[in-house]
Amino acid sequence: MASTKHQQLLKKYADVIVKVGLNLRKGQRLVISNSRTRGVLAHAAPLVHEVARSAYAAGARYVDVIWGDEELIRIRLQNAARDSLSEYSKWHVTGAMDILERGDAFLTIVGENPDLLSDLNPDAVAAWQKAHLENFKVVGEALSNNKVNWCVVASVGPEWAKKVFPKLSAEKAQAKLWDEIFRATRSDQPNPVRAWKEHARKLKLRAAYMQAKQFSALHYTAPGTDLTLGLPRGHKWITAGSPAANGVDFIPNLPTEEIFTLPDRSHVDGTVTATLPLSYSGSLIENFSVTFEKGRIVKVSAKKGEKTLKKLIETDEGAKRLGEVALVPVSSPIAKSGHLFYNTLFDENASCHLAIGHAYRFTLEGGEAMSEDEFMKSGGNASITHVDFMVGSSKTDIDGIREDGSAEPVMRQGEWAFKA
Amino acid sequence: MASTKHQQLLKKYADVIVKVGLNLRKGQRLVISNSRTRGVLAHAAPLVHEVARSAYAAGARYVDVIWGDEELIRIRLQNAARDSLSEYSKWHVTGAMDILERGDAFLTIVGENPDLLSDLNPDAVAAWQKAHLENFKVVGEALSNNKVNWCVVASVGPEWAKKVFPKLSAEKAQAKLWDEIFRATRSDQPNPVRAWKEHARKLKLRAAYMQAKQFSALHYTAPGTDLTLGLPRGHKWITAGSPAANGVDFIPNLPTEEIFTLPDRSHVDGTVTATLPLSYSGSLIENFSVTFEKGRIVKVSAKKGEKTLKKLIETDEGAKRLGEVALVPVSSPIAKSGHLFYNTLFDENASCHLAIGHAYRFTLEGGEAMSEDEFMKSGGNASITHVDFMVGSSKTDIDGIREDGSAEPVMRQGEWAFKA
Repeated sequence: MASTKHQQLLKKYADVIVKVGLNLRKGQRLVISNSRTRGVLAHAAPLVHEVARSAYAAGARYVDVIWGDEELIRIRLQNAARDSLSEYSKWHVTGAMDILERGDAFLTIVGENPDLLSDLNPDAVAAWQKAHLENFKVVGEALSNNKVNWCVVASVGPEWAKKVFPKLSAEKAQAKLWDEIFRATRSDQPNPVRAWKEHARKLKLRAAYMQAKQFSALHYTAPGTDLTLGLPRGHKWITAGSPAANGVDFIPNLPTEEIFTLPDRSHVDGTVTATLPLSYSGSLIENFSVTFEKGRIVKVSAKKGEKTLKKLIETDEGAKRLGEVALVPVSSPIAKSGHLFYNTLFDENASCHLAIGHAYRFTLEGGEAMSEDEFMKSGGNASITHVDFMVGSSKTDIDGIREDGSAEPVMRQGEWAFKA
Repeated sequence: MASTKHQQLLKKYADVIVKVGLNLRKGQRLVISNSRTRGVLAHAAPLVHEVARSAYAAGARYVDVIWGDEELIRIRLQNAARDSLSEYSKWHVTGAMDILERGDAFLTIVGENPDLLSDLNPDAVAAWQKAHLENFKVVGEALSNNKVNWCVVASVGPEWAKKVFPKLSAEKAQAKLWDEIFRATRSDQPNPVRAWKEHARKLKLRAAYMQAKQFSALHYTAPGTDLTLGLPRGHKWITAGSPAANGVDFIPNLPTEEIFTLPDRSHVDGTVTATLPLSYSGSLIENFSVTFEKGRIVKVSAKKGEKTLKKLIETDEGAKRLGEVALVPVSSPIAKSGHLFYNTLFDENASCHLAIGHAYRFTLEGGEAMSEDEFMKSGGNASITHVDFMVGSSKTDIDGIREDGSAEPVMRQGEWAFKA
């Protein structure tokens, strides 16, 4: 892994993160963390160090890292008294809020073990997870409202690599996963920054097309799926970057291949079957379907992880409804790689997906200025959670439904049905 | 390193830390950090995990770890704008204060690279160090006033091991340093907890002897040393444990071989020559002498690191005076090992030492209740820093001076001159 070539790619990747993802401004501070594990995992240190060098070269005043440790979560859940699992350490939240109040850039580096907590008691895991979500809610909201320029990227962890490439040796699995990350983030291209500009331009044309249509609903058909999903008036199709409240244009996920908006929290009907496993709260949920009536989940079933899925939708009332709908063609480079990544950052960019839970204010016209009540009356959803699950495949057809009830193809066999 | 025997010793060491050092109470939270590096270094993870298991077994409600990263400090000092080095991230301080206000137990795990910043510009290092000391002062004071039960222990870092055992391979150096830690902390004994009780009993007899004497001064003679050091009225000789404000008896350092009290900040005269190098702020200071007049340092000289030493005493007014005097015989197990550890936790338990800077309130009768002004008028010293340096060897003689000016041997040739 420590080859010169790897080190060069890591440096280019770090530059993409700083220049394209965060678009870090001279004089900003940069904070690096991972809210799911309460901090960046130690295996990401080589990437963190390159990002720090790149950030200082870009004029960062200070690069501050909050580190975390997955194993400690496991040790806690295995050894601590059950009634202590809802205890929470507030400094993570007060620290993150200080950082956001200051307007510092915020980088999240993921790369967790997707199976970390799979063998533990789901009740214990859910108690721990819920305490985190409830306490961390203010931070999640500030980020999802784009208070500052933020970005989520990945670094290869040993358990994650082994999960994606189980037949390879540990070393080869990690090298292969790094190759996938470098390719998906265009870090392997001669001029990654220019490649990103071109990519963003194309995505924005797709979003503009859908934006102009203002469909009142989308209708999904696929094996195990027949779902009608309302789109509220004033929904905004977003892609590859937004301006943050601190004035900086940024791209919140690298890679990104999606265009997305919000569904109407009260107008989702029918059943959708997931096309990829979902890694949630340290466990995998596989082969699952979700049925909606008037926006609310009324039935779930899963061949594996059903209890974890049920815990997820019991998180709060908003976790029983959808907050995001995203379109990704099966020709996306990540989909074409043919790998299942067991990590939302990658899998969501290989497949059309929906998110259970929180809706982003900026996906609705005027949403940022609304009270929570107004936002919900306009079709938006509120929850302490936001979990993407994948519903697209080469068998997915999606129609756009106009106000008059007439239909128009949006996707056919998982591919765009229109030119933009 | 990952042998079963190593793992067993690590587990026993973790138990010593939790049961003897911290004396963790059922229902307490435990926080693990390292203020010098803003968090525990990643190489300490195996020890952290064993301590967490031991703490949960002892009834801890939550084991919370603040992780740090030395390399990031180096990257910052090498790459950040010079005028940015005094910027500080407040969450470390607010987080630590939250923890101390709650009364949680606080464990510090050291094991830094003693040469981390040796090749960097001393002005840059000093600017960074000073910002940390000034901001972290409130935390340091809360700990040194024993607000909670706290403890400092070591975990082997690769650079540290290589510095102590430069002729050994990286792996052998680390194994050897672990052996030294296990031995010094009595973790290799059949019943470490009982061994600690016996050890603490003996140390307390020494402290009680010195306490009863109430010498008005100590007089040091050794090659390059002729120093008279006043002891204020009401000075208290402390050893191996104190009760914290939260009511828990604890031992703040493992290992510990010293008995210590405070010198009179205005009555130190003469010259003292260090007998071991001092690792301070990522650099080594070697072969140095310090001359005092009326308590104040008036001259320093060092064959190596003189600039770093001068920066240290320029930290503030209190850094020009002494805050601690500690006695350790040359027969201490750590001294007998014959190794130089380049780490205060070990070297200070192999040698009589003095500390530049802050004096502990609990070393003066009634000190905890005094205002800073009262404390200083009574002979105590105040500073944002507290740095031990070693002055004892087999050539050190120390006399206790009575109020009438008569003398009595306290140490001869580095060994106790009295029975206790």
